[in-house]
Amino acid sequence: MTMRSELGEEAGVVEGLLDTAVDQVRRFADAVRDRDVDLVLIAARGTSDHAAIYGQYVLGSRNRLQVALAAPSLVSVYGGGPRLRNAAVLGISQSGRSPDVVAVLQDARRQGALTAAITNEPSSELAAAAEHVIELAAGPERAVAATKTYLAEIALLAMISSALSGDAESAVQLRAVPGALREALLVEDAIAGLAAVRATQDRCAVLARGFHYATAREWALKLKELAYVLADPYSAADFQHGPIALVQPGFPVLAVATAGPALDGMVELLGRLAGARADLVVLSDSPEALALGAGVQIPATPEWLSPLVAIVPAQLFAYHLALARGLDTEAPRNITKVTLTR
Amino acid sequence: MTMRSELGEEAGVVEGLLDTAVDQVRRFADAVRDRDVDLVLIAARGTSDHAAIYGQYVLGSRNRLQVALAAPSLVSVYGGGPRLRNAAVLGISQSGRSPDVVAVLQDARRQGALTAAITNEPSSELAAAAEHVIELAAGPERAVAATKTYLAEIALLAMISSALSGDAESAVQLRAVPGALREALLVEDAIAGLAAVRATQDRCAVLARGFHYATAREWALKLKELAYVLADPYSAADFQHGPIALVQPGFPVLAVATAGPALDGMVELLGRLAGARADLVVLSDSPEALALGAGVQIPATPEWLSPLVAIVPAQLFAYHLALARGLDTEAPRNITKVTLTR
Repeated sequence: MTMRSELGEEAGVVEGLLDTAVDQVRRFADAVRDRDVDLVLIAARGTSDHAAIYGQYVLGSRNRLQVALAAPSLVSVYGGGPRLRNAAVLGISQSGRSPDVVAVLQDARRQGALTAAITNEPSSELAAAAEHVIELAAGPERAVAATKTYLAEIALLAMISSALSGDAESAVQLRAVPGALREALLVEDAIAGLAAVRATQDRCAVLARGFHYATAREWALKLKELAYVLADPYSAADFQHGPIALVQPGFPVLAVATAGPALDGMVELLGRLAGARADLVVLSDSPEALALGAGVQIPATPEWLSPLVAIVPAQLFAYHLALARGLDTEAPRNITKVTLTR
Repeated sequence: MTMRSELGEEAGVVEGLLDTAVDQVRRFADAVRDRDVDLVLIAARGTSDHAAIYGQYVLGSRNRLQVALAAPSLVSVYGGGPRLRNAAVLGISQSGRSPDVVAVLQDARRQGALTAAITNEPSSELAAAAEHVIELAAGPERAVAATKTYLAEIALLAMISSALSGDAESAVQLRAVPGALREALLVEDAIAGLAAVRATQDRCAVLARGFHYATAREWALKLKELAYVLADPYSAADFQHGPIALVQPGFPVLAVATAGPALDGMVELLGRLAGARADLVVLSDSPEALALGAGVQIPATPEWLSPLVAIVPAQLFAYHLALARGLDTEAPRNITKVTLTR
């Protein structure tokens, strides 16, 4: 299966980027410093928009950069993007072809902002629109559901954060990621078992907090694309401001919670949901969190890099749930690889 | 029923604000101009976060201000908010009590940013944390599901946008909103009928583009809180980047599409979904859009103000769907009026 084999390439893709992307990343980080950037605006759609959410947390917490996620329609539909001063504008797109994302970059460059494209296609329109191009170098992605390009996108954002901080320890931590990605694949049989017994579920909530909010969003998208499960991703905080009303005994909840400042709040919420007898699947490196539901152990990784590792079992879960539901993971209904929205 | 009667107070609340809030709004708008603000950061949770999304579109398209939605955990969990220069930071909260939203405002004020609280409780911690206080003046909201305070929040954001632009026509357009809100209530019987025949649905997608993305998000939240329907809100563009795989004959889709630059794209997508025999409910002022599914006519309003009007039938739909499902709209499961997340 193409999707499963591309998922297996993830460790190699990140390993490659840690060597080949260093110069592109450094040049962009130098420009961010030279131009005294204080706002990073990211334009993206679908899976790449979830990479942008990771960017919001990693650049916000480690580099104290304010990150805004663009509403591309402000440029592409309403025809006048917000004023950009001291801003860096990043477009993220596997294909580099979505017209609305390209329009945001073009508008930003016209306004004199620093621009960069993160894309798998260095000859795309998006790349042409940007001053800096940072290649995903993930090789062709043929499966409709993106897997390895998501990994490449968030790995590059982590590398940008590391280059901006100039912190030697972060570079060492990045080097350990490919090994953790290989280790993360070892839970596949356990994941397949958890998916098999949930084959009849057609809705669920997906919860996380902080860095893993991106993981929850991307996990939910994979569940929709591949398994046709209406998966609703929520920050654990926002979930408690209303949607928690959905929970009754047996209500399916998927959660990601790894060691770090967000863990205590997640454990508290998961304890409450376990008390309400929700059906919990928990991806974690914390024994306390794992014990609250059907636990899937993921390799311990510094929190800022844990979204790179935790997405692997999440992708595997969506893949195996689709198989358990008798669906074709290579040809999801209604969608094609490249979506051209305006 | 408290919720239904508070929903009926919406026109009066907006009418009141157009008189009483003028000075508070003008003082804040003057400060935004004086301080040469180019970024507005909004911190909010739940319903108020959807008001923030409206703020992103109205201030972005009409005032060319870049709006970022805060990730409150960057301050409250990770302990160091992004640097804020030339920024105005807005906290929006009915109760003014959510610790994570308060923390963002406190951090911003320490950094010297312009701060404002939009709240129904002028003696709350949020109000105390901010330099400017703009009162919702909606009267006590007793129902757990917020209705009139959402209206008050987005009405104030529209007033701020109007004050910033100094455009006389926009003030005239605002004056027409209370009348349109009263007219919007007239579709209640039709709405109740549409809800009654959908009482067994437990999942749906809620779609919109541009200004109405906020409407879609808030509609979906009301459906979850009141009717326990897993409603997944999407920008029409993002929906096509994956989640559209969910759609099969009979799949429930709710949509909002009113006249303006976003309408053509919505009509195109709804036509495609009608072709796939999705079960469509469409709130619109456009005959073309209304004809594509079960249509609910909403009063024609300039697009930038249409989210104030379109949310009324959306709230009514969630309310009547809850009744049709035999649920207690006054006591949703698991939630309380004030949620204190950190």
